This record gives sequence, structure tokens and C-alpha cells, in this order.
Amino acid sequence: MRVGILGGGQLARMLALAGLPLGLRFTVLDASADICAGDVADVLAGDFVDHACLSALAKLCDVLTFDFENVPASSVAFLQTQRDIHPNADVLAMTQDRLTEKAAFAALNVPVAPHCAVNSLAELTSATGQLGFPCVLKTRRLGYDGKGQYRLRGPGDVETAWRMMNDAPSILEAWIVFDRELSQVATRARDGCMVFYPLTQNVHRDGILALSLAPAKVSDALTHLAQTYARAMAEHYQYVGTFALEFFVVGEQLVLNEMAPRVHNSGHWTIDGAVTSQFENHLRAICNLPLGETTARGVSLMFNWIGEVPPLADVLCVPGFKQHDYGKQARAGRKVGHATLVAASFDQLQNSLNQMPAAVCTSEQRDYVRQKLLDIYL
Amino acid sequence: MRVGILGGGQLARMLALAGLPLGLRFTVLDASADICAGDVADVLAGDFVDHACLSALAKLCDVLTFDFENVPASSVAFLQTQRDIHPNADVLAMTQDRLTEKAAFAALNVPVAPHCAVNSLAELTSATGQLGFPCVLKTRRLGYDGKGQYRLRGPGDVETAWRMMNDAPSILEAWIVFDRELSQVATRARDGCMVFYPLTQNVHRDGILALSLAPAKVSDALTHLAQTYARAMAEHYQYVGTFALEFFVVGEQLVLNEMAPRVHNSGHWTIDGAVTSQFENHLRAICNLPLGETTARGVSLMFNWIGEVPPLADVLCVPGFKQHDYGKQARAGRKVGHATLVAASFDQLQNSLNQMPAAVCTSEQRDYVRQKLLDIYL
Repeated sequence: MRVGILGGGQLARMLALAGLPLGLRFTVLDASADICAGDVADVLAGDFVDHACLSALAKLCDVLTFDFENVPASSVAFLQTQRDIHPNADVLAMTQDRLTEKAAFAALNVPVAPHCAVNSLAELTSATGQLGFPCVLKTRRLGYDGKGQYRLRGPGDVETAWRMMNDAPSILEAWIVFDRELSQVATRARDGCMVFYPLTQNVHRDGILALSLAPAKVSDALTHLAQTYARAMAEHYQYVGTFALEFFVVGEQLVLNEMAPRVHNSGHWTIDGAVTSQFENHLRAICNLPLGETTARGVSLMFNWIGEVPPLADVLCVPGFKQHDYGKQARAGRKVGHATLVAASFDQLQNSLNQMPAAVCTSEQRDYVRQKLLDIYL
Repeated sequence: MRVGILGGGQLARMLALAGLPLGLRFTVLDASADICAGDVADVLAGDFVDHACLSALAKLCDVLTFDFENVPASSVAFLQTQRDIHPNADVLAMTQDRLTEKAAFAALNVPVAPHCAVNSLAELTSATGQLGFPCVLKTRRLGYDGKGQYRLRGPGDVETAWRMMNDAPSILEAWIVFDRELSQVATRARDGCMVFYPLTQNVHRDGILALSLAPAKVSDALTHLAQTYARAMAEHYQYVGTFALEFFVVGEQLVLNEMAPRVHNSGHWTIDGAVTSQFENHLRAICNLPLGETTARGVSLMFNWIGEVPPLADVLCVPGFKQHDYGKQARAGRKVGHATLVAASFDQLQNSLNQMPAAVCTSEQRDYVRQKLLDIYL
């Protein structure tokens, strides 16, 4: 069975690494020939809007998916007429516009931040009056990892903020004062069966995910709420595959920040820390195979490698630290790999942390991580 | 860093799958273009005795290894003059001849079966007089998975046995009445540091490994003995990489059956059932990186798929069953994949066994497995 993936980045690479042992083979479609999934998949060089390329991919493969959320929904809709492709174009389109996304979740009774559509400086001024400061202005489309966002602290920021958007249709969101950030990674099969990973607690730095800890220490009530929201979305959209919902935690409430209609960075710990990874479960779902167990094996702490990967020998000398180098060139701000520390207990996790050489985690970073862990566990 | 592998079979494939997340890349040299490592490695088509091909591989790669033990030792010796290659030609040559292998281990005080070199029918007749019946005649070189072996039950078998050997230099071995078969998989680093996996108990059917259970239920004395023998060999030969020693257990003694100078089928459970797999540790060793922990996560039972892979949906519906399809064409007697059942306890293992559909494990096979497990655990 051959799986076609629109996009050939690290998510496609990790999908292929999870799928090859199942006997699956992969072809990725990407405009760039130098892509990191090329080590483990055949590459079809071409654009996501080129119908001839899309048809060629559909012909080569038995089932299709995508590895990032900015593939045009119209291309997925086009492919749906030729082959099974999951997730579907409707849910993808919903997630591609922050305004639509918020409306969709609100309609499913999932709390979202107060927000206003903003298409001009005048609308922005009026919206800040309604939502107050601080607040955050975001482009409705094509933002990720904190890109296309501007935080407004007071009326003096309004003009600069609007200028940053380059007249793009935007959304102003009230600033949510949250206790912490959690994400729910889940997979829905073609037959409607769903599996949920334990909630993951995320720590962002400069708008990019820096750390994930799983399972997060949460009440049963929060777990239930997250699963209820995930199920509501997935059933409404007849979703097939893995997805992530990112939430702000405010007291005992969850406020949806955004949804990723794909495997997600906050689920990378599942490769080493869960019985079945989010990648394998995505493939099982789209290939109409039974889903696998999502139980965590101990406690996992995932570190993203941003910009460059630390020296391999330093990473590998830490007991229980599993390295995932994406085979990408180093570049400032780029996600080039991650590593997951899997430990039997929180104490053992602390122990392994203490053994990290400075090249992996400076003492300042270690203190930061330790403080975050204490925030989580106390 | 690029790793070159002589041979492109499933062991090379699993090495590459373990090494890609470390940021390693792979080139395999194989005479056949249609090899299963080709999904995850660049392929150089060529013969192991062609010095031009060997040099081309050495030029492309930073470090070299091999994925099966019948690569000519002279080719490894040739490559040693150009690049780091592990394990070395001396230890490879030692394992390629059953007579040399037995002499080498005997010299290291590792018990081996009583045996005689046999080069003619007359010598065979005389050897059977010395060793008695039953006994087993084997070619000294190029045997694996029970090939090139003939069991002699009485004097009437002598002529047939000799005819089966086609005049190849052979060895007659006394028949060892053993309680069970264990293997010690271990890895030695370039700096001499060694790690040992828990002992694995193996069940063969028709000369091919059918099942492995790990950790085997053994006394501390047996564990100590196996590690002592493994260390003696590895230090004597300055071995670098992963290897396996297969033992017969006779009371509280271990008798060496044979050694594999490479990752081994009886260590496949480590992919899912140990903190670091035998494949990753082999790569860590040859690339001069720190070795990883060999601790088992629970109890693992590995099933070899011989001839064909069972339907994927049937395999995946068993909780905790991890599939490893080698991407090979089905063919009678061929190892085409394996799957490992990982469970928190022996009871849970039994439970998962009961959930196996008939397409994976017929009730007859299940009874067989259950009986073997009871033999092991009672």
C-alpha cells in the first residue's frame, strides 16, 4: 500500500518512519526537491495547486493525506474526487481561517477567546474598544509558530499593529490570562472509533513550542472536557486521522486556542512515550486499520531543537533521551529536531535532567525547565 | 554522517530505521538492486568481492559495517585499510568457520559441544564412533537457519549425511540435550565500554527462529555466565558493535552454539521492548557515540513471520503488538517480517495472546506458544 503526502517536511518524514514497519510505502509531493522526507519517501516535485501533479500523486498512491495545514483546501477537494484523502477538505478549510475556526468551535459549544474580525484600522480601533488591552492581532490565514501575530499593550500599539498585518484580513482576540497550555492529540478512524492521548502540557518560548510534558497532571474533569470537545469536532466534521486541539486552561475551563488538522508537535513525545505514536495512529486511521493504544509509558518531556541540533554525543549520554534529528540544515528559528526524555517517574525525570550536559541544556535552561516542571507538579 | 552497509537485507533496513532519527544517512552495497533496505538507504549495486565497488562505498561513507556474516572477511580486511569498519575482519573470519569458532571459544574457556573436523566419509565414520548418536553434521562455512545441516540418528545415516555435504569441509557435533536455548545480545563501544541486553529465550521450528521471549526467566548465575563469555570474546577480539551469542542451557551450564557478529534476530524485540534497540546501539558503537540503556520495558514476545506476513489489520488489532514488515516479497521459508508483543507482565502477555485472531496465530499455534511460555515460566 502506498501513501501519498502533500508536503515533505519533518511530519511527512516521521509519518514514513512510522509507516515503513507496517509495510507501507510513501510518496511526497513538494515544490522543493531538498526536503527532509526524501530520505524515507519517493519525491514528486510539484506545486500543491498544479492539478496535473495532484492527479499524478493520486494515481501513484492508494490513499492520500497532507503534512501541513496550509495546503489549499481546494486541492484537497480536487483530490477527493479521485482518491481517499484524509482529513477532508471541509475540516481543513475550517482550520485555515482563524475566524471560521472560532465560529465553528463556538457552534460546537467549545469556548473560544472573545474576538472581532478586523479589516481596517478603523475596525481595529473599534475592536480594541470592545475587547480592551492587552489583546492580540492575528492574520486570519497562514499564521503558524507565532508568525503573523502582534500583541497590543495599549492604544499606542494600534497603528503599528495594523501596519504589520499588511492589510490582510485579520482577527483581534482578547488576551486570555491562562494558567497553562494543554493540548489534546486524538485520532479518529474511518469507522468513527476514536482514541485520545493523555493531555500534554506545552511551554512556548517566542511563540514556538519549546517543551511538552506528558501526561500532564490534570483533573479527570479537564480530561473529560478535552475529550468531549475533541469528539464534538471530529464527529461533526467526520474527521479521519490524527489532530490536535490547543487549549488555554483558565481555572477548570478550557478555551480553544487553535486546531491542527494533522499530527502535531505537541504529540511528538508519543513516538517514544506512548504505546502507539500519533504518526502510526494517523496512518492506521487513513488506511482503515484498527487504531492502537494511546497509553503513556511513564513520563515524557519533549525538547524542541530550534535552529540547530545539539551535538549528538551530548544528547545520547543522557539516559532515556531519544533523539529525532529531521536531517534539515541548521537555520535560526527553524525546527530541526526534537528529543524526548522518557522516565518511569517524575523523580527519575528530574534525575535525567541533572545529567544533561551544558551543550544540550545550559544550567539556566535547566533551571527554567525545573521551574516549569515544579509549576506543573505542585 | 553517512554509514555504509555491506548487504541490504532486513537487518540493514532496521539499522537505517534506527539511525535516521539520529541524523545518520545510509548507503548499502548489494549485488541485488531489489533489496528491502532500498526504501530507507541509497543503494550501490555491486559485489562484495569487487574492490572498485568496495572503494566506492568507502569513499561515500564515514564509517562502514555489514549486515550479514557471509561477507568475505577479505573484503572487510581490504576496507579496513581505507575506512573505519566494524566489526573487524578477524572476528568475522573466526565466526565464518564453525571449527575455528569452536576452537576460539574453547580457548576463551567458553564451553562448546564436543566435535570433530570431517573431510571424508572415512573421517565421518570414525567421528561418529567417537561422538556417538545422535549427532549433527554441518558444513564448516556458509550455513544459516538450519541450512547445510544433517542430523544423524544412527549408523544408517552416515552415508546419506556425507552425500548431503557435497564434499564440503564439515564438522560433526555431538548432540546436546538441552533444557532451552538462550541468546546474549550485547554491544561493545570503541572505548571498550559494554552493554548487555537481558537474556532472550528462543524457540526454533524447522531450524528457523520462531519465537523469542525476553527477558528470559533465568538465575543470576546464568546471566553472569553469559555476560562473562560475551565479554571474554568481545575484549579478546576488540569487537565493536552489536553481536549475539546463542547458547544451549544444560543444567546451570551454558554451551555455546554459535555467534553472530552482527545484530541478530533474537534481539529484534529490543526495538519495542528495550530502552535502546540493538540496532541503535550498533550504530552508536560504530559511530563512536555513547551506548544506550538496554533495560527491558516489561515482557516481550517476538513472532517471526516466515514465508508471508499475516494480514495487517489482524496484527494491529492485538493490543501492544508492534508490526515490522520488511517490505519483501512473500516466499516459503523466507523471513519477511516480525512482530513483538510488549506487555507490562506475563499475565498481560497471556491476555494479549488470547486476543490474537486466527489469521495471526491459529489456536494450535496459540496452544504451542502458551505451552512454551509455561515451560519458561514454571
